[in-house]
Amino acid sequence: MKADGSILSLALKRPASSARQSTRDRILAHAADIASRDGLEGLTIGRLADDLSMSKSGLIAHFGNKEGLQLAAIEFASEVFVREVVLNVLDARRGIERLNAMLDAWLHYVERSVFSGGCFFMAASLEMDGRPGPVKKRLQVATRWWFDALADEIRFAVRARELPSNTDFTQLAFELHAFAQESNWGYQMFGDKKWFVRARASMAARLTIEK
Amino acid sequence: MKADGSILSLALKRPASSARQSTRDRILAHAADIASRDGLEGLTIGRLADDLSMSKSGLIAHFGNKEGLQLAAIEFASEVFVREVVLNVLDARRGIERLNAMLDAWLHYVERSVFSGGCFFMAASLEMDGRPGPVKKRLQVATRWWFDALADEIRFAVRARELPSNTDFTQLAFELHAFAQESNWGYQMFGDKKWFVRARASMAARLTIEK
Repeated sequence: MKADGSILSLALKRPASSARQSTRDRILAHAADIASRDGLEGLTIGRLADDLSMSKSGLIAHFGNKEGLQLAAIEFASEVFVREVVLNVLDARRGIERLNAMLDAWLHYVERSVFSGGCFFMAASLEMDGRPGPVKKRLQVATRWWFDALADEIRFAVRARELPSNTDFTQLAFELHAFAQESNWGYQMFGDKKWFVRARASMAARLTIEK
Repeated sequence: MKADGSILSLALKRPASSARQSTRDRILAHAADIASRDGLEGLTIGRLADDLSMSKSGLIAHFGNKEGLQLAAIEFASEVFVREVVLNVLDARRGIERLNAMLDAWLHYVERSVFSGGCFFMAASLEMDGRPGPVKKRLQVATRWWFDALADEIRFAVRARELPSNTDFTQLAFELHAFAQESNWGYQMFGDKKWFVRARASMAARLTIEK
């Protein structure tokens, strides 16, 4: 697995998260899970201390304040996304094959409820969108990166003539991204996995070239 | 304007909200705005009392507890949605014309930021999806009603041969609903109105019959 010029492969530059689960990782796993369910604002030093039977002062030593904790939880969730989604698809051949692998891995990640509240980033971005600051900025970077990685792969597929030459790649990225987010919303709201079936059907329809 | 058998026209059975802004409406307008921005969990009797310079006991007399306040805010937001979106399109001829009017009014409602945090229902549903109870139930009913109203109008258009006879109306409703929610997400997150342009382009492409 190596950098291949794709936006996706930029994830390889991030520090790999150690397999050994350190105390810090254990704290952040719980923190990200709380945030996916009850929001980043529901994530407080006091609640985390209670849940994990740790001292508040110990947590403050790790993360500083609530904002530091929120930012660390976002970093942790980004690492999980890289491990669960990105690393599974970097071996796929660039173009339509990798694009399909990205969408499939993404839907599987949401469907398996890696975080108990569904997609960490969708929940967090809808919560924080009205609150400018470092936390919103970090969420913008993370979500934009994934959107751009999808558009980048579509562009590659168009140049490789795997998709029609008149494909508007940002528009297609918008649609594929919309289908995945909609299935996360529908599944979280109504608890029915058919939302993922719908997303897959719409994605497949959009990526099938009519001959 | 009259009931015409559409799911949409069921909104007419709801009590019309009075044009005169009562104290209760003034309180709830502020409450729904807080909730759209900071979440239903950010909506507390204490905060509302501070913001509006009212006594907590007065608010408790109106709404009971926090859950009563949350439910009242959802009712209020539903009435706003009916007034801003539904009532504007019930005069449109049923079928593709009304479907287009529904989508257009919906996007305008989000784009104009009727609530300062964007679409009240998308924010609230992603916040409350992990918390079973009366509030989540009310949000399920409200969001499902709108989804079903879209599917109902698509079905009508298919029967009127305005859309291809093999159209899967739930699948098409899924896609149109996804584009609107995605544009709300993108606009709230990145502050760029081109997200609505994208949603409109994708909707138009899906509703144009290829001849």
